[in-house]
Amino acid sequence: MKATIERATLLKSLSHVQSVVERRNTIPILSNVLIEAAADGGLKLMATDLDLQIVETIEAAVDVPGATTVSAHTLFEIARKLPEGSQVELSAADGKMKIVAGRSNFNLPTLPRDDFPVIAEGELPTRFELPAATLRQIIDKTRFAISTEETRYYLNGIFLHVSDEAQPVLKAAATDGHRLARVTVARPDGAAGMPDVIIPRKCVGELRKLLDELDGTVEVSLSPTKIRFGLGSAILTSKLIDGTFPDYTRVIPTANDKLLKLDPKSFMQGVDRVATIASEKTRAVKMSLDRDKITLSVTSPENGTAAEEVPGEYVADSFDIGFNARYLMDILGQIEGDMVEVHLADAAAPTLIRENDTAPALYVLMPMRV
Amino acid sequence: MKATIERATLLKSLSHVQSVVERRNTIPILSNVLIEAAADGGLKLMATDLDLQIVETIEAAVDVPGATTVSAHTLFEIARKLPEGSQVELSAADGKMKIVAGRSNFNLPTLPRDDFPVIAEGELPTRFELPAATLRQIIDKTRFAISTEETRYYLNGIFLHVSDEAQPVLKAAATDGHRLARVTVARPDGAAGMPDVIIPRKCVGELRKLLDELDGTVEVSLSPTKIRFGLGSAILTSKLIDGTFPDYTRVIPTANDKLLKLDPKSFMQGVDRVATIASEKTRAVKMSLDRDKITLSVTSPENGTAAEEVPGEYVADSFDIGFNARYLMDILGQIEGDMVEVHLADAAAPTLIRENDTAPALYVLMPMRV
Repeated sequence: MKATIERATLLKSLSHVQSVVERRNTIPILSNVLIEAAADGGLKLMATDLDLQIVETIEAAVDVPGATTVSAHTLFEIARKLPEGSQVELSAADGKMKIVAGRSNFNLPTLPRDDFPVIAEGELPTRFELPAATLRQIIDKTRFAISTEETRYYLNGIFLHVSDEAQPVLKAAATDGHRLARVTVARPDGAAGMPDVIIPRKCVGELRKLLDELDGTVEVSLSPTKIRFGLGSAILTSKLIDGTFPDYTRVIPTANDKLLKLDPKSFMQGVDRVATIASEKTRAVKMSLDRDKITLSVTSPENGTAAEEVPGEYVADSFDIGFNARYLMDILGQIEGDMVEVHLADAAAPTLIRENDTAPALYVLMPMRV
Repeated sequence: MKATIERATLLKSLSHVQSVVERRNTIPILSNVLIEAAADGGLKLMATDLDLQIVETIEAAVDVPGATTVSAHTLFEIARKLPEGSQVELSAADGKMKIVAGRSNFNLPTLPRDDFPVIAEGELPTRFELPAATLRQIIDKTRFAISTEETRYYLNGIFLHVSDEAQPVLKAAATDGHRLARVTVARPDGAAGMPDVIIPRKCVGELRKLLDELDGTVEVSLSPTKIRFGLGSAILTSKLIDGTFPDYTRVIPTANDKLLKLDPKSFMQGVDRVATIASEKTRAVKMSLDRDKITLSVTSPENGTAAEEVPGEYVADSFDIGFNARYLMDILGQIEGDMVEVHLADAAAPTLIRENDTAPALYVLMPMRV
């Protein structure tokens, strides 16, 4: 193969592709990026960790079509350090890839393209489109709740499913057992009857990075075992988590009768301030509710005490409840408006948090004993 | 004690002070900042690690003079999180310090001010002034060469000494045995006859941070065992390293007869590029010198090869020499002009690098076998 590419184009694409490559690999070729120059022009870059695969096609002047694989990290570092505006010539022969740009040249060892593992997508019968902005919202409002406990592997991703309610909807949910986040959007055309799927955390992360640079629409295709995201010049394909997501609707409280309304920003800042005193381990903050008087407090045997009154509307019975400050702030950070509703039952019951009853996102937070 | 301070003033001062406090302390009071409210107004903040001490005086409205000590890190975090523009009221009584600002209040446990260790400065007979800009330059151009090897503790700082040459000068030097950096400035009034001193790395780091915010002049006072820097409202006092800095002038080559001149920026970028291929362990880059033709190259059994020609003036004999890329880039990064002189002897001899023969800074770099 032999092809010439703009350094900026190559760098941008490699930055996406190398991000999928794991830092340490026991199988050497998994450290590599597959580079394929097509006869009709265009360079295909591909990387995989066997569970997640990215393919990106970029513009290039192809002299000799062909393909090879080289270290993704090394090629990325070279592209990063080449002078702005340079033209990069890639050519492969005899187990080496030569890179020439300006006064620099590099020879990297290659591994045969035929040894490069490709994820067999199989049939992906469900196909629908989502605006990039919607997909960004779905991810941002749920991913913080994804569990990192590897033993509960079925919680290590975002659960996506359709449901027929007043209107047909698509729902995304994530939970780690302490908090739950769910976003509901209108069901896109083509998603009817789709299987329930769990998208792994790493796929969510890489997808979110690619969405940063994308306006327009994302093409989603899926089967019960694989999902593919078409994002302009990039295609991200991932295996799905082979497990059963728990029936999370059971933990969404429906009868919490004590309503607290407050400004999410000043609430969040108050929680952050009093949590300064909280022990690193528990991060517990106490919220004392009295008629239109909300007091946040922390007492720590080593660090002292902190208290802050936050303005809020509350007319139900007085009581105290405790929350993990980090979890509470994660949720409040996702509320965009200037009012948040906290639906409480008692000090031991799951608490429902949402902007209002028409907001697409809904959060459930388990209290802590304080 | 009881005093009221602007949050911004308190935060800025605490950011300086808490930086001296070590993260982990076996002696609890070393985690604390001493806060002293004077009868005539003004709040003194003080922190120490027993080797380095900072005292900063800030404006405050003092109601009740007095002093106490509280966790520097916790107080800093609280000040950081308080709303901009707030007034912070500090009051101490009964083993607690109360902090009130807006709707927040905190109670922190205190330790008695009398238990707070103070570095006895003793007599500091040598006193001179240095412009902040000169001191910044001295530090920036030498600190990267300070050794981190704890067994060679006498290299863990910047060596400061005076010397009578054509004119009386003050010299600062640092070395780790692989490279040496030295800056020479005119001897300030008052520095004549000063003892040779080694300023510890941590003091250098804290001093450099404080210099970021300072124009004007720094007052330096020292004895053979202590040094004090007066920086406006802050005073930094440090023990000096009790050891003998080696006679570094012996390693500065005086008879290197092969002169290479090149642009430090493109040279540095070239070194950075070819070093992409170098193994993390050695970081060795080969420089091949031919008449006005300089080639940088790296060959790695695992990673492949890299080569780059850099423009330069060279008329002496052809030969090859190797350098640690990181060390070479550290030095080149400190050259401000658009020309650097590299004075070479042979592949095994120390190489002298400087902007020109009138530049205040001079660097010596040991070659590597390649």
